[in-house]
Amino acid sequence: MSWNHRHLLDIQSLSAEDILTVLDTARAFKAVGERAIKKVPALRGKTVVNLFVEPSTRTRISFELAAQRLTADVINFSAEVSSLKKGETLKDTARNLEALNADIIVMRHSAAGAPHFLARFLKSSVVNAGDGAHEHPTQALLDLFTIRERKQTIAGLKVTILGDILYSRVARSNIWGLLKLGAQVTLCGPATLVPPVFRQLGCRVTYDLEEAIAEAEIINLLRIQHERQRQTMFPSIGEYTSLFGLTQGRLARTRPDVLIMHPGPINRGVEIDSEIADCGRSVILEQVTNGLAVRMAVLFLVNGGKGPQEIAA
Amino acid sequence: MSWNHRHLLDIQSLSAEDILTVLDTARAFKAVGERAIKKVPALRGKTVVNLFVEPSTRTRISFELAAQRLTADVINFSAEVSSLKKGETLKDTARNLEALNADIIVMRHSAAGAPHFLARFLKSSVVNAGDGAHEHPTQALLDLFTIRERKQTIAGLKVTILGDILYSRVARSNIWGLLKLGAQVTLCGPATLVPPVFRQLGCRVTYDLEEAIAEAEIINLLRIQHERQRQTMFPSIGEYTSLFGLTQGRLARTRPDVLIMHPGPINRGVEIDSEIADCGRSVILEQVTNGLAVRMAVLFLVNGGKGPQEIAA
Amino acid sequence: MSWNHRHLLDIQSLSAEDILTVLDTARAFKAVGERAIKKVPALRGKTVVNLFVEPSTRTRISFELAAQRLTADVINFSAEVSSLKKGETLKDTARNLEALNADIIVMRHSAAGAPHFLARFLKSSVVNAGDGAHEHPTQALLDLFTIRERKQTIAGLKVTILGDILYSRVARSNIWGLLKLGAQVTLCGPATLVPPVFRQLGCRVTYDLEEAIAEAEIINLLRIQHERQRQTMFPSIGEYTSLFGLTQGRLARTRPDVLIMHPGPINRGVEIDSEIADCGRSVILEQVTNGLAVRMAVLFLVNGGKGPQEIAA
Repeated sequence: MSWNHRHLLDIQSLSAEDILTVLDTARAFKAVGERAIKKVPALRGKTVVNLFVEPSTRTRISFELAAQRLTADVINFSAEVSSLKKGETLKDTARNLEALNADIIVMRHSAAGAPHFLARFLKSSVVNAGDGAHEHPTQALLDLFTIRERKQTIAGLKVTILGDILYSRVARSNIWGLLKLGAQVTLCGPATLVPPVFRQLGCRVTYDLEEAIAEAEIINLLRIQHERQRQTMFPSIGEYTSLFGLTQGRLARTRPDVLIMHPGPINRGVEIDSEIADCGRSVILEQVTNGLAVRMAVLFLVNGGKGPQEIAA
Repeated sequence: MSWNHRHLLDIQSLSAEDILTVLDTARAFKAVGERAIKKVPALRGKTVVNLFVEPSTRTRISFELAAQRLTADVINFSAEVSSLKKGETLKDTARNLEALNADIIVMRHSAAGAPHFLARFLKSSVVNAGDGAHEHPTQALLDLFTIRERKQTIAGLKVTILGDILYSRVARSNIWGLLKLGAQVTLCGPATLVPPVFRQLGCRVTYDLEEAIAEAEIINLLRIQHERQRQTMFPSIGEYTSLFGLTQGRLARTRPDVLIMHPGPINRGVEIDSEIADCGRSVILEQVTNGLAVRMAVLFLVNGGKGPQEIAA
Repeated sequence: MSWNHRHLLDIQSLSAEDILTVLDTARAFKAVGERAIKKVPALRGKTVVNLFVEPSTRTRISFELAAQRLTADVINFSAEVSSLKKGETLKDTARNLEALNADIIVMRHSAAGAPHFLARFLKSSVVNAGDGAHEHPTQALLDLFTIRERKQTIAGLKVTILGDILYSRVARSNIWGLLKLGAQVTLCGPATLVPPVFRQLGCRVTYDLEEAIAEAEIINLLRIQHERQRQTMFPSIGEYTSLFGLTQGRLARTRPDVLIMHPGPINRGVEIDSEIADCGRSVILEQVTNGLAVRMAVLFLVNGGKGPQEIAA
């Protein structure tokens, strides 16, 4: 088990073994988060830049904490107050950060492919923290980590992803990761947001919620992403909730061991009943905790780490 | 002398002994700020999150520096750019921060009681950095620290708080702290801003400025808080200044040993003459310096510290 | 060689020897940036405050990284979200930061002379990170560093500064530095932006681009600073580019060893052809890397450092 990628751009181009290396490394780092002193010196003297061209507090904080716990120095660079506004190109901004000896650039961008573009010419490592509707690889890795931790194995597991599949980078990254590790993936949501073309990847696509959740061992609820929808894809939030919201009544017709996941922030009463978010089957907050460990692992690996064997217990 | 609170939510619920423990601990930390290397490793590997839902640069920086000097990692989370704007509840935001292993959440919020609400369900420690018009406990503690450092004792001391008492969390926290330590508290200001009900707490209330300041050993001037007044409570800034501003002429009719305090930022020429702010009786900048020591003490204590005996000289 | 200034306010008041001390110290720190662990403990336990009253991501990040690599604690204070907006004076803001034991205040301000004003009453060190159209000393120092590193010596060198000289603090600081170190400085640009009065300092002033660049060993292109121009000083961007933009055709009529410099962010296709920015003669990204080393040197020196002899190889 040995990682050998300088960037983390997407899940699509990783092998199953790569994914498992991240998950195993994250498991070692999760233990660090439970110590009294939650730090390791793995990235001491390294510089991590959070280049967030699209705003995101949650993901930015998770990466910032991950870098701090690896003892890296962190710089936050947000587009709203930057030279990108003065007309500088993204390429020039990135090359300037590289010229400042940035070791790792964590980037969120509204354009699909933006991190891949940077990775082509930068010597710094690039980590994709979400690019448009394309991929959000660390979210998928933390979801896979959470599933594996709770269900031991992912191969053969029945996973349903529910909601806005079309515009969701979380869905896309999860689909790639789940399929690579052998899960059976069902996609469900309004027909306008769940194109049948996903069947070609090997997913089951259904527009019948009851059918989608009846046998599921994992239900991953996506956030309704108003901000990434070019037009209205369903009549109203109320109609979405009545047709596809996970209610107590619907939950009663699922397996007793089903786990409820959500990348957050949750819209209580929209895609999920408030009580379900807080119930014993929900692992939503575990996902947040695991995200920190997964991001520590990713920063560690792209900076030259090889795998969990290098982390002292 | 032994602190045993996991949160610092208000002054009202502290005992006199609790308050003195904070002040004594702060005295030990103040010495750290005078060293060449202004750091101690007391909170190494701990994470402090500044959750500022209401903006405040001064208080945020004071807490950030306090955390840095304790060698904690600090994350700044401001509401304007956060998922709170995407409709996430405060409870969910806080539980997400807790899921990231935040040890201490320092919160400023425009709603009275918001930190108490969080403290009820969080395992992280909560420090109130100002909640609406309710309390601002670290401001009162730094004021008490400053008074005690200059006057040796607080019991029996004549303290006048001047200005907008009604909407001031600083006033409320100061009143509780001063009364618990035995000071004689006089409140003065426009009748619309100084309700007589404060007499029930044991304060003297007067609307006659000359009477309020004649015998005072401490005059604590409050900032006119336009932002927290629901309606105009006095005719104009000019009228406020002419009736209640601390001018050179009025200062001449006070005790020669009176100390002038102000929580800042000061409005020169409004509640205080510019020359008075800079004169020898003003301890306004000492309050700022002491605030850092007090906040170090608070972070140290809520994280499990017991008292000043644990800090190496 | 021994530095003895508590502040860095401008280049005008430095001696040639002072400038060389900064450059030599920066050379020692540049080597630190090439190590695996890019940190030295020179400013451990010291506090650097970035007081940016005028926004600037690039310069702020460069100073922040410089402080981190010296192991200082860094606080970012931006005017937009600060008490300056509540009517606090700049003097009070600065004295508050000093009361928080800030060792060094790095300030950018839209008013010329603002850092000099602070330096008059603060015990903290003040570093000018750009004051209005007056000076930007660390930019000039990093430009001088880059020139010296590439050309070995500055005395006698033919340097052309091209563009908006009138409103450019970069130009002003460069002119002082270059003249003190013995360079021959030519200024060129639209007549409205290059006042003849600069001849009195010892510069050559010309409005003929071809003449300005023909013999130049260094061409330093300034950014068109719309934000600092009180009125339109030339008819259009297109006209500026056609008359003064550095094109491939014009570059062909320069010396083969000319170096192209630019303080960034560059406007590709305006003051510089895109291809030239990326060609072998361009040292624009080296300037960024060198800026970090120069700022480490400045922070180190104003905090009591004497010179390069104190930095371990």
